Amino acid sequence: MAVTAKSVAESCEAARRASSALGSATTETKNVALAATARLLGERIGDVLEANATDLVDGRDAGLTDALQDRLTLTEERVEAMADGVGAVASLEDPVGEELEQRTLESGLDLRKVRVPLGVVAVVYEARPNVTIDCAALTIKSGNAIVLRGSHYAERTNGALASIVRDALSEVGLPEDAVVLLAAGGHEDLAQLATQDDTVDLLIPRGGEGLKAALKEVATVPVIYAAAGNCHVYVHSAADLDAARRIAVNAKVQRPGVCNAAETLLVDAGVAADFLPTALAELREAGVELVGDQRARESAAGVEIGAADEGDWRSEYLDLKLAVGVVDSLEEAIEHVNRYGTRHSEAIVTRDDRAAEEFTAGVDAAVVYTNASTRFTDGFEFGMRAEIGNSTQKLHARGPIGLRELTTYKYVVRGDGQVRE
Amino acid sequence: MAVTAKSVAESCEAARRASSALGSATTETKNVALAATARLLGERIGDVLEANATDLVDGRDAGLTDALQDRLTLTEERVEAMADGVGAVASLEDPVGEELEQRTLESGLDLRKVRVPLGVVAVVYEARPNVTIDCAALTIKSGNAIVLRGSHYAERTNGALASIVRDALSEVGLPEDAVVLLAAGGHEDLAQLATQDDTVDLLIPRGGEGLKAALKEVATVPVIYAAAGNCHVYVHSAADLDAARRIAVNAKVQRPGVCNAAETLLVDAGVAADFLPTALAELREAGVELVGDQRARESAAGVEIGAADEGDWRSEYLDLKLAVGVVDSLEEAIEHVNRYGTRHSEAIVTRDDRAAEEFTAGVDAAVVYTNASTRFTDGFEFGMRAEIGNSTQKLHARGPIGLRELTTYKYVVRGDGQVRE
Repeated sequence: MAVTAKSVAESCEAARRASSALGSATTETKNVALAATARLLGERIGDVLEANATDLVDGRDAGLTDALQDRLTLTEERVEAMADGVGAVASLEDPVGEELEQRTLESGLDLRKVRVPLGVVAVVYEARPNVTIDCAALTIKSGNAIVLRGSHYAERTNGALASIVRDALSEVGLPEDAVVLLAAGGHEDLAQLATQDDTVDLLIPRGGEGLKAALKEVATVPVIYAAAGNCHVYVHSAADLDAARRIAVNAKVQRPGVCNAAETLLVDAGVAADFLPTALAELREAGVELVGDQRARESAAGVEIGAADEGDWRSEYLDLKLAVGVVDSLEEAIEHVNRYGTRHSEAIVTRDDRAAEEFTAGVDAAVVYTNASTRFTDGFEFGMRAEIGNSTQKLHARGPIGLRELTTYKYVVRGDGQVRE
Repeated sequence: MAVTAKSVAESCEAARRASSALGSATTETKNVALAATARLLGERIGDVLEANATDLVDGRDAGLTDALQDRLTLTEERVEAMADGVGAVASLEDPVGEELEQRTLESGLDLRKVRVPLGVVAVVYEARPNVTIDCAALTIKSGNAIVLRGSHYAERTNGALASIVRDALSEVGLPEDAVVLLAAGGHEDLAQLATQDDTVDLLIPRGGEGLKAALKEVATVPVIYAAAGNCHVYVHSAADLDAARRIAVNAKVQRPGVCNAAETLLVDAGVAADFLPTALAELREAGVELVGDQRARESAAGVEIGAADEGDWRSEYLDLKLAVGVVDSLEEAIEHVNRYGTRHSEAIVTRDDRAAEEFTAGVDAAVVYTNASTRFTDGFEFGMRAEIGNSTQKLHARGPIGLRELTTYKYVVRGDGQVRE
């Protein structure tokens, strides 16, 4: 079993010690470790599925909901998909060592700004065993050690998976403690992890709002909060209304449970009467529950739509539900988005370039779209070919967190005896 | 007076509202505002010095030390230097709007990653009135609003200075609340400021360890902790010993009270007997108090040197005091630096390129020097032509924090109706 009997502090310290070997490992060594991981996932699929079956029995006894059981369940296909994912990470460009800047200073010093790994990344997640492999692969490729803290419902499954990665690291001569799986304890353990300032460089929570709130209370290590998304689609007065309808429906319906799905539709008063009847009818037909302000409801032309209150503008439903508001101007739309949005992904539909620019400049969000669905905010769609989360913070990483976002930089300065006058 | 009677939350909210106008202001408008600031500093120098005189009388009555009084004191020359500094910031390149990446996604979307201001930056500082002007100028140029929280000892001086910047903003039609000076209250007010998540995007403390510790306890807004520097100079076995002596002396003596000054000198055992007698004698002559480990003391050849204990290796003396240790290898030097260092600035002196590379790769610090003094870690020396602090964190900004480090980015994505399949 890879679950450690060590304390949280000892585990993080072990990862810290292992991190320097990862940081200086060549791209080839890291890729060979990833290939070994993929191979061992195949060879030991029996162990993994057996561990998973035991977790599932316990989970059922403990009353896990069907949805959570589904997320916890591994099958041959799902394990194969994990192995494929590891292979895909191996094929990504190694971000480590990239020279970001070079210049000769007035003092004659040669200054280079070079990309280096963060060191130790901790990930806290729920009962999704694939996160164990996905995140370990991304941190290995980016030269980081990882401390994993999963759900106790998945403890045996995660143990089997972490063992595989650790053995793969050993095979290529890298320290197995570059991947450490903590025993999933209670909130006390979480608080301990979140305060290991000396050893943990970044903590990424992959879980709901409760987890984030708990971390905000206690964390002293840097945390990137993966996003809640209260995203808007704004239909401007100069919009192509057909495109607007397709975009609004796609942003809401295509996958309502994710953070880049739209939660509010804003429509310019000038086109509300033209746009809303067809758009709302199509949304309703797709099973979307609608709530709206007074004017939206008046333009609904018989489509069933409830009354929206202040809470609706603030809600990330993550479900087939949509709030609909009518605004009098572009400025009012921007103001609404900045007041209620969570700085994730926002879209304007318009044929007016100046309106698009104004919206883009005025809206404070990681991604601002013109004439496209908010659903494109994603590391894979963005061509980063990986994603460990999606940041709504402004520091360090904004939007999709890929390999490069798991690195920092270091200034390497070479002289021939320079001293400061 | 520019000191606001509003609550902390109201003040930050006002800055937030003002920030969008700053964010979309043209380079020219921002530069004209800076020029007006410099001009008004000259025109109202009498007001500033009068306010400062009153602060100083109160400070003396309150028992401020001579050193703190000196930092608080303004003179005509010091105000003129501030005005010159504002002019220098105006001449810097505007970081806002820079296109960091551009690509066409598989979906046909046009993606641009564009540099944008952070929004609202809060700075907490001690009784150094020049920080008021320096930081306001840097945030204006980078398109941010700023919330200033200075020392109550400098309250009148800061009020006069902030009024000048606010009036300069008004002159060019920018909202004066882009520069807000809080009344300097106690720790409670500080805690309030550090938890304004909805309005403050970044908090930069410019003060001692006590302030940082207080913030670590309570802050929920992102903080960049400007650096403590326990910096090392390591004299490798293949060092040019003359260069090593000059570098060690410079790193310790040239300005001992700053974070990039050296606090520990490590010497390879192979050159200790050759190097230490002259080097320690020169350091002692420059008034440096020396402490060392057993072997360093044995090589001191009569130079006065006390016994170093564990606490000395951890100390940032910020004074004419130096700890001296002898190590048996490059590996031991790296291990020592990584154990005791604060990830600020570290130097190796060597003629062996491989040793230099190994040290550079192995040491975890913002800046690693080969054959140069640690004293070069500085925004101006690095050619950034500005500095608001020096970060020993790894996220977002590492090393000198200049204009670019006061920005984030936004993805601007343009389509022609794309929806996700």
